[in-house]
Amino acid sequence: MIKPITIIGSGFAAYQLVKTIRRMDLTVSITVITADKGHDYNKPDLSHVFSKKQSIADVITIQADDFKQQFNVELFAEYRVTNIDTDNRIITANNQSFEYEKLVFATGASPFVPPITGMPDGVALTLNSLNDFEKNQQHINNAKSVLVIGGGLIGVEVALDLANADKKVTLVEPNAQLMQIQLPEYVAHKLTQALEQQEIEVYTATGVSSMTQSDDGLIVTLTNGRKIEAQQILVCAGLKPNIALAAAANLLVSRGICVNEFMQTSDANIYALGDCAEFEGQVKAYLQPTLISASALAKTLLGEVTSVKLPNMMVKVKTPNYPIQIGGKTDSSSVSRWNLDIQSQGIVAKGYDIDDNMVGFVVTQDCTQQAFSLLRQL
Amino acid sequence: MIKPITIIGSGFAAYQLVKTIRRMDLTVSITVITADKGHDYNKPDLSHVFSKKQSIADVITIQADDFKQQFNVELFAEYRVTNIDTDNRIITANNQSFEYEKLVFATGASPFVPPITGMPDGVALTLNSLNDFEKNQQHINNAKSVLVIGGGLIGVEVALDLANADKKVTLVEPNAQLMQIQLPEYVAHKLTQALEQQEIEVYTATGVSSMTQSDDGLIVTLTNGRKIEAQQILVCAGLKPNIALAAAANLLVSRGICVNEFMQTSDANIYALGDCAEFEGQVKAYLQPTLISASALAKTLLGEVTSVKLPNMMVKVKTPNYPIQIGGKTDSSSVSRWNLDIQSQGIVAKGYDIDDNMVGFVVTQDCTQQAFSLLRQL
Repeated sequence: MIKPITIIGSGFAAYQLVKTIRRMDLTVSITVITADKGHDYNKPDLSHVFSKKQSIADVITIQADDFKQQFNVELFAEYRVTNIDTDNRIITANNQSFEYEKLVFATGASPFVPPITGMPDGVALTLNSLNDFEKNQQHINNAKSVLVIGGGLIGVEVALDLANADKKVTLVEPNAQLMQIQLPEYVAHKLTQALEQQEIEVYTATGVSSMTQSDDGLIVTLTNGRKIEAQQILVCAGLKPNIALAAAANLLVSRGICVNEFMQTSDANIYALGDCAEFEGQVKAYLQPTLISASALAKTLLGEVTSVKLPNMMVKVKTPNYPIQIGGKTDSSSVSRWNLDIQSQGIVAKGYDIDDNMVGFVVTQDCTQQAFSLLRQL
Repeated sequence: MIKPITIIGSGFAAYQLVKTIRRMDLTVSITVITADKGHDYNKPDLSHVFSKKQSIADVITIQADDFKQQFNVELFAEYRVTNIDTDNRIITANNQSFEYEKLVFATGASPFVPPITGMPDGVALTLNSLNDFEKNQQHINNAKSVLVIGGGLIGVEVALDLANADKKVTLVEPNAQLMQIQLPEYVAHKLTQALEQQEIEVYTATGVSSMTQSDDGLIVTLTNGRKIEAQQILVCAGLKPNIALAAAANLLVSRGICVNEFMQTSDANIYALGDCAEFEGQVKAYLQPTLISASALAKTLLGEVTSVKLPNMMVKVKTPNYPIQIGGKTDSSSVSRWNLDIQSQGIVAKGYDIDDNMVGFVVTQDCTQQAFSLLRQL
């Protein structure tokens, strides 16, 4: 007999797992306990909500009540889990107790907000969830100028989105280049130029040192001494996996909740999936690894124990005026040599490891057409 | 009988021709008429005179009188040619007449000084000749801060030299990158970073819009709005071939004095060599083409008509903290695709033409060791 499944969370990982299980089994009991409202939504949409003038309703794909019906789940929305008794398999949420057989952590991650001298409470907005969007959209929509802190993938996408929504945007990245983890320096340099063409002021190798309030918003002093006026601050400085609950339940945690190839935590009845999970020493925060992991985990939970094998992944950067696609491993610890082919129609950058094997690539503009053929070469 | 040879000029081209002729023929009459003092000197030394604290004496390799003796030439120093009667083959200089049989223009080129609003006379110093150096060295040695206008090969070398001589240096280049004619953008970007590490302030895509005098020097306003304080201005904004004399003599001129493969002008008795000559539609201002052209021209003048065949050339950029070597054709009209191999020890950039033939390369840092092997591949 298949054991009932309990999931904490209602983000992409949680709901992807529900959908995958339901494709294979219509009857197994699934319980979802979530601090959020339980709507299903398309998270990547958050990278272009402002230029497309989208509302919460536009981003929600399935309302909580419909999701509950459609996928036959017990949904406890706005229930915050406060304790997990792993010996007796009892969850406490909103002072109620829930027994579980198999438990899945899909608690996601929270935006990291760097401490800044003089920053008033509530000024640093984030945009990592439907909740964030609901809470912050009005502030951002009303702002004429926005300072985006963090020039990683999301910061770049959001900065461009805000500029396309006719806001004055400043993007500040403490690393020496934009998207330091993913891009070779020259592509980051061209991306910077593309953002500057959209009137975004880009400062790399620069942090925020302090801020003060003015009549019209904030005056932000950067570590390079420059002063920026901005009515709102949007922080895209990376994510911290939500591990407090798992740690309190004595599960093994590192940066995320540590899982093995079956997405199983140090407690054999408990799994973790998505942005909260640390697999092979890494938190894989993209959609594609979560999708593949959810598929394997669904089988495992339904009795067919299946290990997760992540193929080479591809990421499409949502920068319409300078399209970029990234495949395989492109971080500096994986790539010891870059080969860049630079033509007027775009760049093909191939990353080679220390043994001179191609381990990743970055393609831009019209060369993005070569992405799938390059992915096959990895 | 070999006809006597008359040369106008005493720069690198003129004296290289004298030396080459004398290696082949000790007796043919050679007359040199020059507006300069007639010393022989090593022009590339001008790119590091300030950091090496060199004087005029250090740069002069052979004094005019010694040169005259050693190479058996009739030397008319500080003689300015004012007219050439090509029908009767008579030169006028300092109101004296000189008959010639075979005449060689080695009149060189003059620095181009862009017009700048508010620039006081004599403020824009240049460093293209021994004369320039003699006239300007004291001003530059005394200056604590220098603005270098022009980020081409010479501007870059001189800016670095001045920074190494502990001056506060600002380098302004109107093109989008340093050494736009020679370098792929990424190498220029790394070169910019290397200059910035030497505390040089680099502004690309920026010109000088105006300047005013202050108590302590000049306040220069750039086209990007920034104001720079500098005690001296050094202009390295390219060269204009000295063609006025040739034009007045009705020789065919374009940017330079047009010559055929024998370095022969539109007048069969007159030749042109070096920075004043335009060969195959280009003024080849580097030393190596002049060396090779002088060798062919020496033979031609001695009766063995020899055409100039320029092989693929190599240029070493004198930037010790970021060594660069350039081979073959690397300008944007020759290169339609760049391939860059980027490793921690340096960059190998190969330029391919529209038919995908490798036509040039740029190597940096430790990869400069590959320069000769790459040159053979061209």
